[in-house]
Amino acid sequence: MSEINQENLTPTQRSQIKRVPQRGNYEREVIYQILDEGLICHVGFAIDNQPYVIPTAYGRVDDQLYIHGSPASRMLRSLQTGIEVCLTVTLLDGLVLARSAYHHSMNYRSVVIFGTAALVKDAEEKLAALQAFTDHVIPKRWEEVRPPNRQELQGTLVLSLPLTEASAKVRTGPPLDDEADYTLPVWAGVVPLKLVAGEAIADSRSIEQIPTQVRNYTR
Amino acid sequence: MSEINQENLTPTQRSQIKRVPQRGNYEREVIYQILDEGLICHVGFAIDNQPYVIPTAYGRVDDQLYIHGSPASRMLRSLQTGIEVCLTVTLLDGLVLARSAYHHSMNYRSVVIFGTAALVKDAEEKLAALQAFTDHVIPKRWEEVRPPNRQELQGTLVLSLPLTEASAKVRTGPPLDDEADYTLPVWAGVVPLKLVAGEAIADSRSIEQIPTQVRNYTR
Repeated sequence: MSEINQENLTPTQRSQIKRVPQRGNYEREVIYQILDEGLICHVGFAIDNQPYVIPTAYGRVDDQLYIHGSPASRMLRSLQTGIEVCLTVTLLDGLVLARSAYHHSMNYRSVVIFGTAALVKDAEEKLAALQAFTDHVIPKRWEEVRPPNRQELQGTLVLSLPLTEASAKVRTGPPLDDEADYTLPVWAGVVPLKLVAGEAIADSRSIEQIPTQVRNYTR
Repeated sequence: MSEINQENLTPTQRSQIKRVPQRGNYEREVIYQILDEGLICHVGFAIDNQPYVIPTAYGRVDDQLYIHGSPASRMLRSLQTGIEVCLTVTLLDGLVLARSAYHHSMNYRSVVIFGTAALVKDAEEKLAALQAFTDHVIPKRWEEVRPPNRQELQGTLVLSLPLTEASAKVRTGPPLDDEADYTLPVWAGVVPLKLVAGEAIADSRSIEQIPTQVRNYTR
């Protein structure tokens, strides 16, 4: 997607993984791969200690994560004021079925980012962010579509969140049962899960051939 | 999964859908179907206006949503004190590819729940919630596995969140382009997305036949 800064992130009080710390990871490469594979994030913010968690699309350019929306959006209006944000991306990779109810789990890869977001005012950065949103969903889509006109640009707010305080958490592999439970007559293992594309559905006025990257879409 | 209270929810200041209100839905049946199809939720809470968004598993019994974890979990320790929670479940159904960059979108179904969580102290309710977690992931799994022992029950906190203040937001269907853009030579339509199970992988010490509901897992 873009260049990777090789320097790892330093865990902070907020971003350090405290529960099952061996699943924590602070490598930029790991964090960016999860962000680039995901399609939606959950943006958390608080107004007078009232939390809100809003799902939204995002894009990444180098060490910045971008979100966007309407100038009327409560989320964007709130974040613009510089309040703290917690943005989380989660990929579900499998169901972990153990012999005991207690040891059931899930395989996943998640990233949690902390920081404050800033309104992108620079026209060039804003356009690059909008391209990143589109190409994040389908590579090279930006080249094919009509770019935003002046009115659409004015009608879109873009906010940037620096990727400086973040951590990944990853679980992989089979269930881990208590030793005594391995003799129980219970099947145990993993059901892998994947977000899979079905056959693309052209809209009723579509006159063009379906592009290769749409036909063979994989994540 | 369980009985559905037929009464619809009343939108509140917090739960009312303000952006694109025609996508908002307050029917219990719609909300519960989304919750029952999802596998993970994102739990948002704030400590001194610092938001946290944590992905976790959940279960539903009637009009209560349950989350669980270790007594050492910061999230559960914080929520137990009665602070406000915002819990969001999002299902991604498709990529909406328009002729213009601006009208790109996603098809999704999401639920946002507001309220405060309570520690489940009643032993019977706690066990029913733990069964709901397990059976939420794979139906009837609870009947096959070793139930939690006393030590495991003590090592698990269960919190309940009442489904009284919640809303769904749903987008379906094709892209909507500006009239002038329909003549552009750009393919437009929807790429459906679905969480699909791969072939189940028995762990290295598994001696049992794979159960039917694991072999034929669908969401």
